[in-house]
Amino acid sequence: MTRKPATGKELFQALFEPRSIALVGASGDATKNTSRPQRYLRKHGYTGRIIPINPGRDEIFGEKAYPDVTAVPGDIDHAFIMVPAKAVQASIEQCAAKGVPVATIYSDGFAETGPEGRRNQDRILGIARAGGVRVIGPNCIGLMSTDPGCAISVNAVLEMAEIRVGPLALVSQSGSMLGGLLSRGLGRGVGFSKLISVGNESDLSVGEFADLLVDDAHTQTILLFMETIRDADKIAHAARRAYAAGKRVIVYKLGRSEVGQDLAASHTGAMAGADEMADTFFRAHGIVRVDTLENLFELPALLANQKPAKQHRVAVMTTTGGGAASVVDRLGTLGVEVVGPTDDVVASLAAQNITISKARLTDLTLAGAKKEIYSAVLDTLLASEHCDLVLAVAGSSAQFQPQVAIEPLIEADTRGKPLASFVAPHAETSLKLLAEAGIAGFRTPESCADAIRAWRDWAPPIEQPAADQKPLAAAAKLLKDAGAQLDEYRSGAVFEALGIPRAATEVITEPGQKVGVAFPVVAKILSPDILHKTEAGGVVLNIGDAAALEQAAKDILARVRSKQPDAKIEGILVQRMEKGLAELILGYKRDPQVGPVVVLGVGGVLAEIYKDFTVRLAPVSAEDADAMIDEVKGLALIRGYRGMPKGDRAALAKAVSAMSQLAFVDDVSEAEVNPLMVKREGEGVVAVDGLIVRAVR
Amino acid sequence: MTRKPATGKELFQALFEPRSIALVGASGDATKNTSRPQRYLRKHGYTGRIIPINPGRDEIFGEKAYPDVTAVPGDIDHAFIMVPAKAVQASIEQCAAKGVPVATIYSDGFAETGPEGRRNQDRILGIARAGGVRVIGPNCIGLMSTDPGCAISVNAVLEMAEIRVGPLALVSQSGSMLGGLLSRGLGRGVGFSKLISVGNESDLSVGEFADLLVDDAHTQTILLFMETIRDADKIAHAARRAYAAGKRVIVYKLGRSEVGQDLAASHTGAMAGADEMADTFFRAHGIVRVDTLENLFELPALLANQKPAKQHRVAVMTTTGGGAASVVDRLGTLGVEVVGPTDDVVASLAAQNITISKARLTDLTLAGAKKEIYSAVLDTLLASEHCDLVLAVAGSSAQFQPQVAIEPLIEADTRGKPLASFVAPHAETSLKLLAEAGIAGFRTPESCADAIRAWRDWAPPIEQPAADQKPLAAAAKLLKDAGAQLDEYRSGAVFEALGIPRAATEVITEPGQKVGVAFPVVAKILSPDILHKTEAGGVVLNIGDAAALEQAAKDILARVRSKQPDAKIEGILVQRMEKGLAELILGYKRDPQVGPVVVLGVGGVLAEIYKDFTVRLAPVSAEDADAMIDEVKGLALIRGYRGMPKGDRAALAKAVSAMSQLAFVDDVSEAEVNPLMVKREGEGVVAVDGLIVRAVR
Repeated sequence: MTRKPATGKELFQALFEPRSIALVGASGDATKNTSRPQRYLRKHGYTGRIIPINPGRDEIFGEKAYPDVTAVPGDIDHAFIMVPAKAVQASIEQCAAKGVPVATIYSDGFAETGPEGRRNQDRILGIARAGGVRVIGPNCIGLMSTDPGCAISVNAVLEMAEIRVGPLALVSQSGSMLGGLLSRGLGRGVGFSKLISVGNESDLSVGEFADLLVDDAHTQTILLFMETIRDADKIAHAARRAYAAGKRVIVYKLGRSEVGQDLAASHTGAMAGADEMADTFFRAHGIVRVDTLENLFELPALLANQKPAKQHRVAVMTTTGGGAASVVDRLGTLGVEVVGPTDDVVASLAAQNITISKARLTDLTLAGAKKEIYSAVLDTLLASEHCDLVLAVAGSSAQFQPQVAIEPLIEADTRGKPLASFVAPHAETSLKLLAEAGIAGFRTPESCADAIRAWRDWAPPIEQPAADQKPLAAAAKLLKDAGAQLDEYRSGAVFEALGIPRAATEVITEPGQKVGVAFPVVAKILSPDILHKTEAGGVVLNIGDAAALEQAAKDILARVRSKQPDAKIEGILVQRMEKGLAELILGYKRDPQVGPVVVLGVGGVLAEIYKDFTVRLAPVSAEDADAMIDEVKGLALIRGYRGMPKGDRAALAKAVSAMSQLAFVDDVSEAEVNPLMVKREGEGVVAVDGLIVRAVR
Repeated sequence: MTRKPATGKELFQALFEPRSIALVGASGDATKNTSRPQRYLRKHGYTGRIIPINPGRDEIFGEKAYPDVTAVPGDIDHAFIMVPAKAVQASIEQCAAKGVPVATIYSDGFAETGPEGRRNQDRILGIARAGGVRVIGPNCIGLMSTDPGCAISVNAVLEMAEIRVGPLALVSQSGSMLGGLLSRGLGRGVGFSKLISVGNESDLSVGEFADLLVDDAHTQTILLFMETIRDADKIAHAARRAYAAGKRVIVYKLGRSEVGQDLAASHTGAMAGADEMADTFFRAHGIVRVDTLENLFELPALLANQKPAKQHRVAVMTTTGGGAASVVDRLGTLGVEVVGPTDDVVASLAAQNITISKARLTDLTLAGAKKEIYSAVLDTLLASEHCDLVLAVAGSSAQFQPQVAIEPLIEADTRGKPLASFVAPHAETSLKLLAEAGIAGFRTPESCADAIRAWRDWAPPIEQPAADQKPLAAAAKLLKDAGAQLDEYRSGAVFEALGIPRAATEVITEPGQKVGVAFPVVAKILSPDILHKTEAGGVVLNIGDAAALEQAAKDILARVRSKQPDAKIEGILVQRMEKGLAELILGYKRDPQVGPVVVLGVGGVLAEIYKDFTVRLAPVSAEDADAMIDEVKGLALIRGYRGMPKGDRAALAKAVSAMSQLAFVDDVSEAEVNPLMVKREGEGVVAVDGLIVRAVR
């Protein structure tokens, strides 16, 4: 029996607004976890039909119980499965037989336990798919909806009196943190529309849930608590739809310290770990990543009704210099620009008999802790065009006189400008007042600075360029039948076809053969079996004339033949000796989590040690590639550092963009130009060495 | 009239336990700030004599008022001065005349406003000193003591019912944050012994207060909120006494993002900014620096009754994998080692029918959220020698069932091992329970990770080596009459005298002069007027024989004379051409805030861009210098990175230690060897170029 699985509205309703819920494995023993969902459902306002499934009972807590799902009269919209792992298959088979559109599997013991668990999970999923049952989990703690109330979970957090209704929807890969996050949000005075534990994501994934939430009228901000990225394409799709709909997607993702142990052939692979990839992915799709946990709940108000700003100048006002400095200091380490008031602002306030200095921090001191002064300064800053965000840091008055420091914020006409408030003392009441008024209030200087950093980094989803057909066709021709790993010469030809100039190069097969390349030249062994040419004695630099070249070629052949007698030698590559202001690595790879990316970094051992590089999803336009150049510290070498000459930025950006076109060539898994020499402005860039790895049989 | 100012116990009593307090400028108008101290003193338990000073009133709020300090019958132990800036001098004169040992000046308008204010402050201080009056402030918000109660301040935070008595003393350079910090501490369930706003520190400074607190039986931990370091020597002295007394000093210091704009002659000056200096200073004296504000109150419990550990392996247990991961992930980025259980631990728990995995994170999951399981695992980890700190992360149970996640912590026998707890949900009650039990509970994963990082970085005060008399005498001889800036040759001689080998060097005054230095050599112009030798055409590298040297010398002289005809030329320096595995910068400077320091970094433009260096207070022992080598990322080049040969670490450490002996030479303000070549193990280091700057007329 094959049935079409539910999608869209039908799926949404079965997930969050089911008319009937079967609790498979429900217990009548109130001390057991599996007895909780029935109680929690009613407690949190579920008014539909609850159907306990338990072969040993006729009735549980006043509801008629059935031995199995198929025995239930009438439709079941949603099954919550709490039976032991080995009994899950039978439950899913019954759901399929009964035509239950959605099954949430609380049971654990599947893919999270290892290969055998994964096989069991796959088998069950196959049964579900064939039967048209959409699956949440397994190994998930359930899902909750607040309006109308429908909390399907064993989570003890539901012991709380009520879940405040609000605009935040939370999708969590950690089941055990769902309750913690809910309680943290409520503790901060915010409210929720939906909370979803996705468990192992065997079927319904983070991205698919996010997509459903874009269309949920109760949801304004989608929060993601993530441990890994399993469905990049769906998340990207949902994030872009959310952006278009004016909804924010905010993510807290673990894995920042994961060591990138990619044993790839290129440096590119080793340079950028999974976390940099995730960062790049989020940013490319307009997803805002926070570094501090509390910002899942503190940041939404700052971004509500905002669009990414073009400039990011922050004005700071306070009555506590030390409190404000604790945020400003941190903003400095994050590279956020804090601006002092303009002459106009100072004059405008002077006209109201308020004297402020032109210092970067507008400190009203204790003397300014009066509502009329606070309000006047705040309103003037919000109205002034010299700043793009106003940070108001509240001092002791926030604790005892909210009317002084908090009311002005609530009453202010922000004129669409983002307004953030750090509350220096312990002042829960003030924070709640701010939360209720929808104003971003921060409890710690660290989260406040992180939020403003996140606002600065927030950008619209990147428009990726189209395929550049002509160079791609030329590259495809060269790649055809090229094997799994291209040597330096063939790789260089592909890069050249894509639009990355390479040093003038010829291949000779015998010492003494004439070359057209102008001296001085470099001679390098060309062999598919020799990866480390220098170590094999296969490189001679700075060859001045034909005689020296002949000698060098002989020497190279002699050394290589003695060191690696079995190596297949294809010839000797003679290349114009090139110099530049800087030697870079330009890499490309198809990342297993986020897909094609392009990486730009400085070459050499030191840069490798410092991990100095930047990543973008590929393909990337020359314009976006230009922005990458500012993100690599070591590229100060071509940005005119300390009066040094500037490099050819435009040519470099073009080369990065050209490399990124490999995203349109399915079977290239890695590529790298190393080094890419950047010459002076107007003199271009030139590839000196490189490789390409293909995913071919 | 000159009187000896109070110190020690006498000073302590006048500050914190005065028998009588004069409130100079006290107001009888309850809406004025200056009316508050009288009320706050009584409210917070002060039982001594309160004497309002106000020439316009005979009585204020039931206390007899006097027109000025000298008119008061009987002794005054402490005067709190709240009059306008211009009236402060008269008040201090009266205090001196009356023999008041301590005056706390709330009034502002002094050094914080500019040069004129500073002059006024200095004048007043002179009067106070002559009259034996110790001064707190000006521009300070007051000071508070809890047992016996004595809160001398206008701070509105004192509107609160009571200040909980406890072991924390806070010294703050920010007056406006004193109340905020007090309320934050109380909000976290900790208590205070003393709170002090030091204002402009014209007389009594942070260090002197810290020193008094070391002898305060009510104080166990000294907290510092700092904006700058004004009295390094006193702070150092107090911190070392505190360490010896088993008391902790914890600092939160602003200025992390301050740009080091030191326009010094050497790179050393520009490399290490004021904040790195502060960091180094704190660490050298056993002061623990926190990065997150809340750790002023969360960290003390973790360090109480602890000594700095020799190893720093962290074991983590939890019922919420996601919650624990949010801390562990951050610990990873901070380089803290998290260790999984040993076979012994697993076996010992298995014997109690508890199964745990060997994963780095001991996740008991929801199934382990039972007190007996939680306690058994916790006790086993605390007892095991495989870890040096246990982090227990509490899940949802912390919110509704403190007995499951919190009681085991409170009841545990820690066996002297530090125990930290991050509480994943919003669970204020659990946090308070932990605070009351003296267990370190953390509200955010960020502060928890920061605290564990601070614990790892905590070290005993460094033992600085004594003066090495013989080399210092030799160096002193060379420095005598040497002028303000020593040229490369003379600097090299001083470094050599101190024990830093230099490349074989001779100076010739004419081209063609014979040299004893073995070829190949480098020729460099020697002139006090030429700082940038290469740019002036004054350097030729890789000279192979005497004929080439003669030609090179001629070329250099011709180029330099044509480019800088007025430069005084002292000769040509002929130096053996040296090569090493890495080229370093070894610097020394006398920092205006923290005193003599030695700096070690990698040379070259890239390293400069990456700001890759480490700093220590000078002098430093060879053993401590060896530890510095591990802190410079780029020194991977001599640590055997990727199979590269190892450099001569011992020789490098010795050179760093030798350089640091300049701390014993008062008039050397800066010195730098750049580059210092590090050769292979056993082959030593060699100085190739350098300079010395002296603070002489």
